[in-house]
This record gives sequence, structure tokens and C-alpha cells, in this order.
Amino acid sequence: MRHVYLDNNGTTRVYPEVVEAMLPFFCENYGNPSSVHKAGRIAKKAIDHARQQVASLVNCDPSEVIFTSGGSEAINTAIKGIMAVGLETARHCITTKVEHSAVINSCRYLEEIGHDVTWLDVDSDGTLTAEAVEAAITDRTALISVMYANNETGAIFPVAEIGEIAFRKGIPFLCDAVQTVGKIPVSFKDLPADILTVSGHKFHAPKGIGALIVRKGISLTPLIHGGSQERRRRGGTENVPGIVGFGAACEIARRKLESESARIRALRAGFEQRIIELIPNVKLNGHPEKRLPNTSNISFIGANAELLLTELDRAGVAVSAGSACTSGSRTISHVLDAMGLDDAAARSAIRFSFGQDNTEADLDYLLELLPGMVEKLRTRKQTKPCISVTTDTNSVFD
Amino acid sequence: MRHVYLDNNGTTRVYPEVVEAMLPFFCENYGNPSSVHKAGRIAKKAIDHARQQVASLVNCDPSEVIFTSGGSEAINTAIKGIMAVGLETARHCITTKVEHSAVINSCRYLEEIGHDVTWLDVDSDGTLTAEAVEAAITDRTALISVMYANNETGAIFPVAEIGEIAFRKGIPFLCDAVQTVGKIPVSFKDLPADILTVSGHKFHAPKGIGALIVRKGISLTPLIHGGSQERRRRGGTENVPGIVGFGAACEIARRKLESESARIRALRAGFEQRIIELIPNVKLNGHPEKRLPNTSNISFIGANAELLLTELDRAGVAVSAGSACTSGSRTISHVLDAMGLDDAAARSAIRFSFGQDNTEADLDYLLELLPGMVEKLRTRKQTKPCISVTTDTNSVFD
Repeated sequence: MRHVYLDNNGTTRVYPEVVEAMLPFFCENYGNPSSVHKAGRIAKKAIDHARQQVASLVNCDPSEVIFTSGGSEAINTAIKGIMAVGLETARHCITTKVEHSAVINSCRYLEEIGHDVTWLDVDSDGTLTAEAVEAAITDRTALISVMYANNETGAIFPVAEIGEIAFRKGIPFLCDAVQTVGKIPVSFKDLPADILTVSGHKFHAPKGIGALIVRKGISLTPLIHGGSQERRRRGGTENVPGIVGFGAACEIARRKLESESARIRALRAGFEQRIIELIPNVKLNGHPEKRLPNTSNISFIGANAELLLTELDRAGVAVSAGSACTSGSRTISHVLDAMGLDDAAARSAIRFSFGQDNTEADLDYLLELLPGMVEKLRTRKQTKPCISVTTDTNSVFD
Repeated sequence: MRHVYLDNNGTTRVYPEVVEAMLPFFCENYGNPSSVHKAGRIAKKAIDHARQQVASLVNCDPSEVIFTSGGSEAINTAIKGIMAVGLETARHCITTKVEHSAVINSCRYLEEIGHDVTWLDVDSDGTLTAEAVEAAITDRTALISVMYANNETGAIFPVAEIGEIAFRKGIPFLCDAVQTVGKIPVSFKDLPADILTVSGHKFHAPKGIGALIVRKGISLTPLIHGGSQERRRRGGTENVPGIVGFGAACEIARRKLESESARIRALRAGFEQRIIELIPNVKLNGHPEKRLPNTSNISFIGANAELLLTELDRAGVAVSAGSACTSGSRTISHVLDAMGLDDAAARSAIRFSFGQDNTEADLDYLLELLPGMVEKLRTRKQTKPCISVTTDTNSVFD
């Protein structure tokens, strides 16, 4: 059986070159970068090199890179580091209804501890205007947090315009770029954002490593207090092999980004074209053009997405579904819900997220199977409609 | 030149078997454990297995294990999760002056946001009595945080007695066991602690992975909000290879603990004996018996520890020093300072922390060099006395 992995927004295969780069730092150069002896200095030097590689990919100064254990830690550090500083006066944060669960649940926590949050709606394409963000600003607004691109639909937000507004008003702007970095060019120097969040495992680095890119002059309360690592902004012994792997993946991404991005965009265009030709009554979700090159979110109206996912899985194809049935209750994605998808569209939505390894042959295989599977599911007795909306994207998309 | 690594309390060499166990989870079984397809299920199963391995080592229920990115994250999660919950009434926390910087700086943060902290003194052996802890309890005390064993001296605290008191008074007890787990047997079921913190890289797992062991019924506000991972107690895609490696290291530690612990204890006893015989005017720091089997903290009065560290490093021997000279200011360890060491003892303190790889031959090599080095340094012109105390253990010990 062929194996076709189309869940690259969930996580990616680590590049063998990345593992190669990491290996010497487990059993050989295993020193603690805080140690002054030789083993420590070797580890320290490796981290410095990786920091340069990360900085090159996102076009920032190496001193602006703070390594974290991943995107969620980076996001929590940014939001809580700016907003939840102790027992201060209640302040205001602006975000959207379609952010990743790390942003959504950090902002819900802000509400719990007494801050105010404005949850912006998105349009049917899954994005919003910079004007909508501007209109929500009050004199208490202390943070604007809007993602660069959405993980479920790939929809790209007008982050440059939002950043301009934030800069003009003197409000820190957090741009969650976890799904963007490594997929399209991102330049921190050119983007008027104060903080950018990045996750390694979304572009072929290992899980457990990510970064926060923080503009000089922005001060953050650390999320993890401890030693003097990361210029006192993140305590804890550095994950040296993870950081080295992350750096290596950034290096590869920088080299391949342009060509791979174009190749994957073309692959996806052909895929969507053929889906439309082969399968009636489908709906493409997310902005038609302003979209990550690798993401297709498609509703196969009348077919249950969860069952379709299972059928595809049996055939060796890995995808994500926009609805899930957990402990007896049926939930649909908070993103598709915020976009106003009707129940039939939301319940039948599948995310195909392409990556480095995918070829035309993968899609030929998938497109041989898919029409029949959809047809079969459409004739099945329908289950009862969705009854709740989940912001817990992990049980649905990630 | 021989290489002798005697900085195992700083970090350890990853076991090759641990790396072997991790490898399939980078390029092959790279699924996201939150995904429902096969790749995700394989990853999920691997995490469940590792959770069992961790639970077996510390004798707890697997459901009590929360994976984190390391000891510092675990400690911050515990302290802030219990104490820093929003804009509540100021509360009280009891800790000691000799904790790891993650505890010390988390507690300083508590003070910054309006809570009270009692910083308990230690005696000249580097430990304290359970009575001292009891005497500090007030009706506002919401957390007692005392380490199991100290990273710099190896001194073991009366955590069972402290736990009894905490249990009797109904106050949550956090026991930082980062330097203990993997070195001596630790049983969470038998210890009246509510939270135990563990770090993988201190016992041959990779850096970037650790755990919080949390007694059923104790509720913590997550430090990292996000998806539903770790039963909603820690968001973020799980570091699957790191978790698998951590599990494998726990398995090995469990198997080898008794014999290795005895072997290392004997090695150290011989070492300390010979040091005393060979070098005049030395002082052993830390409790003579109640001490981790692998840690020797020795002052070579009259020799500058930092210079001695450098000489040893040149000869291929890695150790830590109790003082450091950073950016022109000389600092001494906060632990040695709290133990009341005089300046001469603090400035000449070296930590030798033994591990799995160390043999008698290593120590023969070291003991051939050490007397001459100490002698040479003692005849050098002395530098000016220490002028500040650091709690930033990373620049000194870790």
C-alpha cells in the first residue's frame, strides 16, 4: 500500500540532514552551554550558529531570537509576557476567532484573570480587514495578536497593514507565524510586528523546538523563570540537539523555499482543479488567492469528514478533518464555524496539507480513491448534525 | 589526552540506547499524536509507553505524569500554577535560599506580583530541619517548595518529614527532584509530596524534556495554554522523540539504579579519601552522609576555583566551580553563601559530579594532576575577594 502524508500543517517529517546535524549533540558534544569548560563551549557555539540560521530565515537580528520548546510556548510567552504581568490594571487585547488554540486559550486565561479581549470575526474566506482591527482599538489596548496564516484553511491575514496600524498607535503586535515560516518568505525586518512566533516541527525540524522573535526594546516577563539562558528571557538548559536541528531546518528552508513553494503551489492547483472536475458538490474553504501554497480545505458536502478521514487512513492517506466525534459529542472546527460554514459544509471538511515529500504520483493515487469514497459515504445514512463547536483544534486540525 | 567528564550534575551524556529509541520518531514515525490517522496513533502509543516508563521509575500512576520541556518548565508550572493564579489575594510561599534558580526566580516573581515568600536559611551542611519549615507556616501559606537534593553540594533534604507536615496542614508541597531522580530511588507513592519535578538530561535522556508528577486532585493553572495535550494541563505538540528518549532513560535508570548508585558512591568515597590524603587544607562542603552518591563539593583553600577549573579543562577534565568572574564582577554561589562558607572556601570550591561513564582510571588521572595544580595556584598572587553573591546558578553550578 502506498503511503501519502497530506497532514503537513499538523507536523512534518524531519529532514534526514537535520537528524544528521543533531546526532553529535546527544552522545558526543553533550555539554551544557552554560558550563565554562570545553564541552560547554562547544554546545554554546552550536547554539550561536543555529541562532544565526534562524535569523537568516526570518530576516531578523540573531539577538532577537529566543529559543522555546515550540510554538505554543512561544505564543504563551508573548501573550502572558506582555499582558499578564502581575496584579496590574485590567487591560485590553485584540485577537481573532480563528487563532490557534494556544492563542485562544491564552486569551481566555487573560479574561479569567480580569483582562478584556475582543474576539474579531472573520469573513467567509477566513480572513479580515486591517480596518476591523483598527476599529477595535481602545485606549486600554495593550496587545494585538493576529496570525500570519491560518492552520486550517491557509488563509493569509493582512499582517503588514495590521502591523502598520499597531505601530502607528504604539501597541505591541504579535504575529503568530507558526504556519507561515518555512512555507512562504517571512521577513521580520520588513514586517511591522513586534513579536513573531515560529515552530520547528512545521517545517521539518524536530518537535519540541521553536522560537519567539522579539523586536529590540520590547520587554517581556519570562514565562519560564530560571537561569540566565536566552539573555535571561527563557530559563532552562537549552535543548541543544533540538536547537541545532531547528537551525539546520531553517538553513534548508531558506535554500529551498522559493522553488519548493512554487512546486507545491502548482501541485495543489492541479489537485484542486481535478477535485472539482471529478467530484460534484464540493466547496473550497479559505481565501482563493490569499492562501498558503500548501493548504487545501475542501468540503465534500454530504460525506462525513470523519468517516472519510478513516477511509483514507485505511488506504494509507493521512489528512485532517474539520469535525470530530469525541466522547459521544460531535464537534466542528472553531475556524470553519467562525467563517460561517453551514453544518453540511463544516461536517464534510477535509484539510489536505502538502509538503516536501508529495509528488504528482501521490495525488494520482489519492484521486483514484477519493471520488468513490465520497460517493459511498454520500449514500450512507446520515448521522445527526453537529452539536458543538470546538476551539480545541488539536482534536480536529492542528 | 584523556577526557574525564565530572560535571554530571550539569548535564549527562545521552545513552546510545536512548538515541536508538528516539531515531524512528524523527523521519519515520513522525506523526502528531493529536492526529487520528495511523501516523498520529503510532506517536500517541509511543508517548503512552514512555509515560509508563517514567511512572515506573518514580513509582507513580502514569496519569500523574505531565511531560514538559524540562526541569525549569516543570518548576515554573508548579509554582505559578499553584500561586500566581490571577489577581487573587496575596498568599504566602515557603522555600529555601539554596534552591535551583528556576525556583528562586519563580519565587522572586511571586514577590514582584505581590505574594510573600519566606526564604529559609540552611545550616553549614547545606540542609535544614523540617521544624524550620513548620515554624514558617502561616494561615496564608499556599505552597511549600523544598528541593529533594541540592545540585551544588548533593545535600539531601528531609523531604519525607517536610511532606508529612505539609500534608497535616493541608498545604501543597512541591519537591524539586531534578537532581535526585535517576541518582537515588524516589517513590512518589511513598513521599508525601503533591508535585515532583524531573529533568531528563540529568540522567542520560536528551535535553529539552522533563516532567511534572502531580498528585491526583491537585489542580494547576497551565503555564502553557493551548490544545488538549497532557489532559489539558500542558498545551503544545508533544516532543515525541524527546518523550520516547526520556522513557527509555527512565527504563535504564530503573534497571541500573541500585548497582550504579553503589558503584558511584564507592568511587566517590575513594576519591574524597585520596583528596584528603594528597592535598592539605581542603574542605568538603555539604552534608557528610545525607548526600547524593555522586556529588563532591570541595574547597581547595587558597586556590582560585575558576583558575583551577580552567587548568583542569586544559587537561581534559570537566568540572564546575563555585565562583565565577563575569563582566568584571566576581560572584560566588548563592548556595555556598547560604551555608556560611567564608570567602576563601567559597572562592576555591569545585564541584565534581560523577556519573555512569566514570571509572577508577579517570580518578587516577585526575588525582595525578590535581595536587600539583592546587599547589601552583596557591602560590599565585591572590585576586581580590569576592564582591557579590549570585543566585544565577547557571553561570556557576547547574
